[in-house]
Amino acid sequence: MLGKNKIKFIRSLEMKKFRSESGCFLAEGNKLVSDILPYFDCELLVARTSWIAAQGNINSRELIEAEGSDIKRASLLKTPQDVLAVFRLPSYNIEMKSLQDELSLVIDGVQTPGNLGTIVRIADWFGIRTVVCSPDSADVFSPKTVQATMGAIARVKVIYTDLPEFLDSFSNTVPVYGAFLEGKNIYREELTSNGLIVIGNEGNGIRDEVAKRITNRLHIPSFPPDNETGESLNVAAATAIICAEYRRREIM
Amino acid sequence: MLGKNKIKFIRSLEMKKFRSESGCFLAEGNKLVSDILPYFDCELLVARTSWIAAQGNINSRELIEAEGSDIKRASLLKTPQDVLAVFRLPSYNIEMKSLQDELSLVIDGVQTPGNLGTIVRIADWFGIRTVVCSPDSADVFSPKTVQATMGAIARVKVIYTDLPEFLDSFSNTVPVYGAFLEGKNIYREELTSNGLIVIGNEGNGIRDEVAKRITNRLHIPSFPPDNETGESLNVAAATAIICAEYRRREIM
Repeated sequence: MLGKNKIKFIRSLEMKKFRSESGCFLAEGNKLVSDILPYFDCELLVARTSWIAAQGNINSRELIEAEGSDIKRASLLKTPQDVLAVFRLPSYNIEMKSLQDELSLVIDGVQTPGNLGTIVRIADWFGIRTVVCSPDSADVFSPKTVQATMGAIARVKVIYTDLPEFLDSFSNTVPVYGAFLEGKNIYREELTSNGLIVIGNEGNGIRDEVAKRITNRLHIPSFPPDNETGESLNVAAATAIICAEYRRREIM
Repeated sequence: MLGKNKIKFIRSLEMKKFRSESGCFLAEGNKLVSDILPYFDCELLVARTSWIAAQGNINSRELIEAEGSDIKRASLLKTPQDVLAVFRLPSYNIEMKSLQDELSLVIDGVQTPGNLGTIVRIADWFGIRTVVCSPDSADVFSPKTVQATMGAIARVKVIYTDLPEFLDSFSNTVPVYGAFLEGKNIYREELTSNGLIVIGNEGNGIRDEVAKRITNRLHIPSFPPDNETGESLNVAAATAIICAEYRRREIM
C-alpha cells in the first residue's frame, strides 16, 4: 500500500533540497528503472503487479505493489508508467589516474536539465566515463535530467566540484580543450585520446576563470565558412560533434 | 493599447488549429524578434517603448507600444521579454533543382519541439537550406519550436509533405541517406555533397515505408566499438554528428 507520506516523499524528490536531505533521487519508467536498477542502491520501488512479475529478482530495500492510480499520484510525469523507484545518490571520488589517462567532459554551468541529460547520454555513447560539473550546473539527479539521460546516468560518473581548483589539480599534465567561437578549426588540430573537454553555458559560454585554464581552443566550423548563420550551435549538439570527432580519430 | 481580444488572439497561436486558421505564428524575445523581423511578414508587433526606440525602422502592419504587464498577459513564456510579434506563416515551394544539387534534411516524425528546433538550428549552422518533414512531425511554427530555433527558422525553409511521395519524386536521382543502428560506419562511407539525409523519430526511428526508399544506410559508431552503451543517441545529437561529418569532408 502506497500511503500519503510515501507519495509526499517521492514527489519531494523533484527539489534538490529534499534530494540532498534524504540522499535519494527518483527515476520513473519501465525501461529506465530496469536499466539502472543493477547499478544503484534502491530504497523503494513502486510498481504494478505485472511489471514486478516480468522482472527477475528485484533488489530493493522496500517493494510496493500499486495500482496505476496510486503510481499516478506519486509520479512527476505527465504520462506515468508502471514503475517508479527511489535510489540512493551515489558518491563518487575524483580519480586522478583515470582522468589523466582517459577522455572526460567538464561542464561549466550548463543550465537546462534536458541539455545536461543529453550530454551524459552522448558521453555514454562515446565511452566517456566521467563528467565533472561546476556546482551551478543543472543537477543530474533532478528527475527531468535522470529521464533525459535514458539510463546513461548509471554508466557515467557525474561529479560536482569547483572547476578552477579541479583544473589546477592536474598541474598541466593533461590537455584541457574547450569550444570557443574564436577557437581553431577542430578538424585541423591535434586531438589526444586523453584529456579534458570543457563545455560552456548555453548563453554565455565558458567563464573567464575556467577559460584561462584551457590549453587548446577549438571551434566547429560552420558551412560554408563564410555562411551567415546563427551565432552558435546548441550546447548538446556541439558536445556531440566534438566527442564524435575525438573518437573518429581513434577508430579510423 | 493591447486589448483583450488581441491578447486572446496572440495566446491562441500556441495551438496549431489557430495558427492554421489565422495563417500566423508567434515569436517572442528581444533577440529572436529582431533577428527574424527582416525575413517574415509581420502582422502585429507588441513591444515596450524602449525596445521600439532601440530599433531602426520596424516593418509591421500594426505596432503597439505596451507596458511590461501587458506583454506578460499576452506572453507564453515564463519570463516574458520586451517584445513579441505575430508573423504570417511563410509558404514555401518544393524546389527540386535545389534539392538535387544541395544537401537537405528529411525528418520522419520527430515529435519533440525542442528536438526539431535544435535540428533546424543545426541545419542553419551547416548551410542546409531545406528541411522536409513528414506531416506528423512537430510543427516548426509552434511557439516552443520557434524559440528553440534561435532565429534559424528565418534562414531554413521547413516544408511539410508526404515523405514516400516526396522521395519517389526524385526517381533515384539523388542519394538518400538514413541513420540506422545496423547501418554502415559513416566514417568509412562515401558521402556526397548533395542528397537527402533522413532522420527518424525519437523512439521508433525511420518508418518502414520511408526506410525502404533509403539508398545508403549509415551508422555513428559508439566507442569503443564493443562498448555497452545506451541503444541510441538523442536524435538532435545524431543529426549534429552526421551533418558535421558531411561538411568536414567538404572543407578538409
